[in-house]
Amino acid sequence: MSNIPSAAADRLLRNAGADRVSTKAATLFSEILEGMAEEVAKSAVTFAEHAGRNTVKAKDIRLAKNI
Amino acid sequence: MSNIPSAAADRLLRNAGADRVSTKAATLFSEILEGMAEEVAKSAVTFAEHAGRNTVKAKDIRLAKNI
Repeated sequence: MSNIPSAAADRLLRNAGADRVSTKAATLFSEILEGMAEEVAKSAVTFAEHAGRNTVKAKDIRLAKNI
Repeated sequence: MSNIPSAAADRLLRNAGADRVSTKAATLFSEILEGMAEEVAKSAVTFAEHAGRNTVKAKDIRLAKNI
């Protein structure tokens, strides 16, 4: 199940100025965004664990975004 | 309006192994993902226009992801 569905990916492209978006483009964009999100999420979880916490905090997200 | 709501950001973090996620972390992650998505989307739209098309295709997304 995708947390970033292709309908959201389609909207993001239209908000960015796209007149039309192919179905394949929306699907691929959804998959790519999900992959990018997973990478940042995994780093954030690692940083929370590294700090001895069970709770992911905003500072873990900030650190994960910068690497 | 967010295309990547904080509930989705929270789920992504839990799927990545988070036991708990602070509300601020989920909100910030949602905002960061939206920003990353907007950057890639804008590039993809620019590449479609550069190729003389009104339709964003998968190859525009691929190119935008790689820059």
